[in-house]
Amino acid sequence: MNEFTGLSAFPLTPFKDDAVDERAFVGLVERLAEAGVDSITALGSTGSYAYLAPDERARVARLAVEHAGTTPVFVGVGALRTSQVLANVASAEEAGARGLLLAPMTYQPLTEDDVFELFHAVAERTELPVIVYDNPGTTHFTFTTDLYARIAQLPGIASIKIPGVPADPTKAREHVATIRAAVPEHVTIGVSGDASAATGLNAGCDVWYSVIGGTLPGPALAIIRAAQQSRAEDAVTESERLAPLWSLFAEFGGSLRVVAAIAEQLGLAPRRCLPLPIQGLSDAEWTRAAEVVAELGLGQ
Amino acid sequence: MNEFTGLSAFPLTPFKDDAVDERAFVGLVERLAEAGVDSITALGSTGSYAYLAPDERARVARLAVEHAGTTPVFVGVGALRTSQVLANVASAEEAGARGLLLAPMTYQPLTEDDVFELFHAVAERTELPVIVYDNPGTTHFTFTTDLYARIAQLPGIASIKIPGVPADPTKAREHVATIRAAVPEHVTIGVSGDASAATGLNAGCDVWYSVIGGTLPGPALAIIRAAQQSRAEDAVTESERLAPLWSLFAEFGGSLRVVAAIAEQLGLAPRRCLPLPIQGLSDAEWTRAAEVVAELGLGQ
Repeated sequence: MNEFTGLSAFPLTPFKDDAVDERAFVGLVERLAEAGVDSITALGSTGSYAYLAPDERARVARLAVEHAGTTPVFVGVGALRTSQVLANVASAEEAGARGLLLAPMTYQPLTEDDVFELFHAVAERTELPVIVYDNPGTTHFTFTTDLYARIAQLPGIASIKIPGVPADPTKAREHVATIRAAVPEHVTIGVSGDASAATGLNAGCDVWYSVIGGTLPGPALAIIRAAQQSRAEDAVTESERLAPLWSLFAEFGGSLRVVAAIAEQLGLAPRRCLPLPIQGLSDAEWTRAAEVVAELGLGQ
Repeated sequence: MNEFTGLSAFPLTPFKDDAVDERAFVGLVERLAEAGVDSITALGSTGSYAYLAPDERARVARLAVEHAGTTPVFVGVGALRTSQVLANVASAEEAGARGLLLAPMTYQPLTEDDVFELFHAVAERTELPVIVYDNPGTTHFTFTTDLYARIAQLPGIASIKIPGVPADPTKAREHVATIRAAVPEHVTIGVSGDASAATGLNAGCDVWYSVIGGTLPGPALAIIRAAQQSRAEDAVTESERLAPLWSLFAEFGGSLRVVAAIAEQLGLAPRRCLPLPIQGLSDAEWTRAAEVVAELGLGQ
């Protein structure tokens, strides 16, 4: 069984007084392992990897592996400087990660060659499988299909995490097929952008790199299992049931602040659990999120 | 004399084998002090601040102050997490900085309130004057004039570094006047985007936060002194003389890679002086830059 398939759940890294709330983080990881997600990706964007110091990242990676039981743990290693990435690779290896997630973080805009050489440097340094993390909303780097293809030829590239797919099922299928045709067969394609996950999975994506999966594994598993069992309509129906949640993501500037609020509401994270300067939802927005949680029965 | 006026020169922080080349950095700082720039801003975007670890930043700040003689040194303190910014503030204070430069770095997009509270936290923590650093090309955060106004009311805000101004002189003047009217009189307005500096200075900007000033102080001083002496046309003529340089900035993805290549060509920095993953100019581009240096007599 390829480990880079199914539901990869992205837990938050909750903060309390500017330090990682280790007990809350461990609680999230144990909850995911118990729920039966296929993998846990610690220190994804949802896990605020970009905001943590190297020693904090090493510690979080270790906690994730220690508390995930038999569930494979992937660890985000992105950083602005290549040598910092390689240091994170080393600490993820020491922690016992089964894969690495790497986004080309930018401050100065990067060229395609810059990004290729970054992945090349990581592939040369580690035996661990690598997930190529395409997240233009945070990195402001735009991958082309050609660049996917170049990077996917490197040894150890296991998967590509693509942003959301087109809403139209036919266009989504064409989009996934284009990437599929450009990369080796062993490289899985993973959808992100939770609102378009059902469409992406039905269009042929192998894995869902999921924000809500990290906090609400039940609804995420309902979608992925339906898609895996070729119950395409059930996957869509379950996703459409969550439409009020997707609306909050769109309205409140993305998934992170909303999912953090939900984790707070469910008692999984302390109030104001994101690292400053990210303040999280305003009180009025937080209340709106709580109403959606109640309406959809997400707290049960 | 307000220290946040005139030419503030932004030196590179040259790297060699993934470490700061301290000798090259000191050489750049001493060169700027001798040239008579009005201030030196270490660890700006040109100084690759975002790529350095906290201890590297403390060391660079100290070297800058130690070697700048009587020239005031401002130090960039931006980081993704507020507590990291405050740690950089402390090390800049210890180094003897006379001002701080703060850009709202982002990974997750920030709200206006997030950014206001970041500046608020810094203003509460330090007595040093702060330059608000608006650099959407690297931070992907867009300031509004209203946000300038809110932040400029905080104690200690000394200056606002705005991006390039409109090319049309009348529109540039209106743009600067709009910001001028929104902020207290003691807050200076600084243009960046070297290609539009002459226009910005002639339109009423008080200071030029200059990339080329950090490596080519002579041509930058020619422009600023003309503008300060109300020789507006001379400033424009001198800027237009440098048009081949501005063309390289536009063609090669910004000023950083080009100025790094020029510093390398002038023997001020070792070859490949930018931090990886930024590879710098290709060999062919580097040769083009060398031709422009020769054509404009920048090496003299």
